[in-house]
Amino acid sequence: MRTVGLVVEYNPLHNGHVYHFTEAKKQTKAEAAIIVMSGYFLQRGEPAIAGKWARTEMALRMGADLVLEIPFAYAAQNAEQFAFGATATLDATGIVDTLCFGSESGQIERIQKLASLLTDEPDVFRTVFARELARGVSYPTAYGRAAAQLLGDADAQKDTSEPNNILGLNYCLALRRLGSSIIPATITRQKAGYHDTEMTDTRIASATALRKHLLESGSLMTIEPYVPSSTLAVLANEQSSGRFPVTWDAFFPHVQHTLLTQTPEELALLHEMTEGLEHRLLAALPHAATFHELMESLKTKRYTWTRLQRLLLYSMLHVTRDQMKQATAEGPSYIRVLGFSDTGRELLRQMKKTARVPILTRVPKEKHPLLALDIRAASVYALAYPTELRLREMQREYWQTPIML
Amino acid sequence: MRTVGLVVEYNPLHNGHVYHFTEAKKQTKAEAAIIVMSGYFLQRGEPAIAGKWARTEMALRMGADLVLEIPFAYAAQNAEQFAFGATATLDATGIVDTLCFGSESGQIERIQKLASLLTDEPDVFRTVFARELARGVSYPTAYGRAAAQLLGDADAQKDTSEPNNILGLNYCLALRRLGSSIIPATITRQKAGYHDTEMTDTRIASATALRKHLLESGSLMTIEPYVPSSTLAVLANEQSSGRFPVTWDAFFPHVQHTLLTQTPEELALLHEMTEGLEHRLLAALPHAATFHELMESLKTKRYTWTRLQRLLLYSMLHVTRDQMKQATAEGPSYIRVLGFSDTGRELLRQMKKTARVPILTRVPKEKHPLLALDIRAASVYALAYPTELRLREMQREYWQTPIML
Repeated sequence: MRTVGLVVEYNPLHNGHVYHFTEAKKQTKAEAAIIVMSGYFLQRGEPAIAGKWARTEMALRMGADLVLEIPFAYAAQNAEQFAFGATATLDATGIVDTLCFGSESGQIERIQKLASLLTDEPDVFRTVFARELARGVSYPTAYGRAAAQLLGDADAQKDTSEPNNILGLNYCLALRRLGSSIIPATITRQKAGYHDTEMTDTRIASATALRKHLLESGSLMTIEPYVPSSTLAVLANEQSSGRFPVTWDAFFPHVQHTLLTQTPEELALLHEMTEGLEHRLLAALPHAATFHELMESLKTKRYTWTRLQRLLLYSMLHVTRDQMKQATAEGPSYIRVLGFSDTGRELLRQMKKTARVPILTRVPKEKHPLLALDIRAASVYALAYPTELRLREMQREYWQTPIML
Repeated sequence: MRTVGLVVEYNPLHNGHVYHFTEAKKQTKAEAAIIVMSGYFLQRGEPAIAGKWARTEMALRMGADLVLEIPFAYAAQNAEQFAFGATATLDATGIVDTLCFGSESGQIERIQKLASLLTDEPDVFRTVFARELARGVSYPTAYGRAAAQLLGDADAQKDTSEPNNILGLNYCLALRRLGSSIIPATITRQKAGYHDTEMTDTRIASATALRKHLLESGSLMTIEPYVPSSTLAVLANEQSSGRFPVTWDAFFPHVQHTLLTQTPEELALLHEMTEGLEHRLLAALPHAATFHELMESLKTKRYTWTRLQRLLLYSMLHVTRDQMKQATAEGPSYIRVLGFSDTGRELLRQMKKTARVPILTRVPKEKHPLLALDIRAASVYALAYPTELRLREMQREYWQTPIML
């Protein structure tokens, strides 16, 4: 079965995602689609607005055949780690033919060329990159400038400064490093009222914009034009049971608790807590009444919102540098199944022969350090839920079986 | 000025405390009374039902002249450590003549005799104590049996198994070990409808009973007959501003958060986390929907409620064995002033000459490890308050000056 793989967050799944999904299947002539999706916490260091099982249902109702989880230790990381975890998971299935991602550029040749030049991070790239970082610019900016220098092509900076181009480049890099047979393809991302006459600004909006509308209005109806009816139905169900919407605000007391009870020396052991950032966090804490205020007071040109959000996430989850190293030492060491369709069941049957790592449909007794972090993330996410739901939801990793549609 | 010292928690201050206070001053012919009081967390490992500044006001309004704080690292500890911290603080003032405590027995000679025999923990005591502990009985029971053996007197077990007798014994022991000039005295505790015709069961109830009534009824009026009107006024003010009542329930999500994010190896570093108790905590967590349920499932004959509550407190505050050791290495290394009357101001003037450690009326820039734990405890306690109060209350250690009445 010709199979396309997609890397997603679906936070929440909207019409733009449906467009990408449909086009990806069409353009790659795929008969089946495998989705690898972040779990409870996302690449930018945020909690997902709805839990992973709800988002799995959205994906399946749209037509996805198999939904796999990107382990937490890759999902809530910089673009390089995120792309590696997602790509390696798709690759490990042994049945994915194409990886189709959205990008601002839509030009797979340019992205591939850049990837081939960057695979070994040549000296000129590394020198410029280090110099730019030392100047105090952010990681993505430094990366873009180093790439432009390497290619002798000012456009390269644009190619590597748009968020989806960066991810795309990193998918291509990861595939090369893995020696994967998966062929990358890209589709130009649709923007509100842009390019496509059918997908006008009355039907397409970014997930960021949708979340903003949702949270400001408190009503699901505000996003009704922009999402498939199945997304709306799933979210309505989550809302009525008290599991939606989840934002950083619900976790702010836990961030405060963490920072109030740990010494700078203890915080310095956490993943990505470098350059004395622990002191910066502790100094900002007494002046921040909300999560947003904390972030605002931490942000600088050098420390991007995303990097700081991830740092607060690692702090709240108490993920140490050592734990992260141990968890990711072997790459994605299992394939976690979140849900599947009838076709997906067929894919799983094939994967029994082709998969290069164990396929997990339930949490085993012996937990790999990578899986232990998934479970930790899931149980802490449940602290955002109303009191009466918490205990059961904290345990969901143990009782939830894959969603079947 | 003839001065009596009292060790208290006032959780909340009630008529029984007023009786003890009045009798203590009368019987010791004291012109002034110094109170040493637990801060936000108490000897049994519980959060105080009202904050330390509110309880200081209760004490001052009753007639206390000077209110000092028992540092957290002593206040939330077993009877021996608690008594040592409290007694050493009184002793360090250099102006206390008598320490007057309540006891079930009311016989200072018996308690003093026991203390003199126990000062060096003779071999026979230690042997029986260790044997009983090994049998799996609780610390207080083992202590009582060992004491009885030492004295060849079955009554000694009773003397050391009633909670206030135990504390009293430990005050006497601490005074001996400190070589203090303070003379211990005791007053028989008044019980509901017991001994005293004026203090009948319509006016005296234990603080435990009062808290139970308060929390079940949700109304301050249910305790009106049992507390001085000043206590009621202070509590009413705390309640209207959202700072009362505080119970473990408010902290349960933080206990969950702590246990969900720490490995057994990390938990094993915490103070009093011995004998593999970290595994016991982690095993109980998934089955407990409330703090009370967690405690119920942890409790055994060996592990008393009190010991386990303190353990959860150290876990929530992330107090490691090393931190506790460092904090208490020199004994109470400062005298923290929570409030004073006009007479108290005079006492403070005297103490400038007599005190053996620095007198703190505000938090200094350089914080001793002992003080750092007080501040940590105070800031975490504020997490129980409504969102809009939290930030200011978290910082209260820095802006609150001693209460003056």
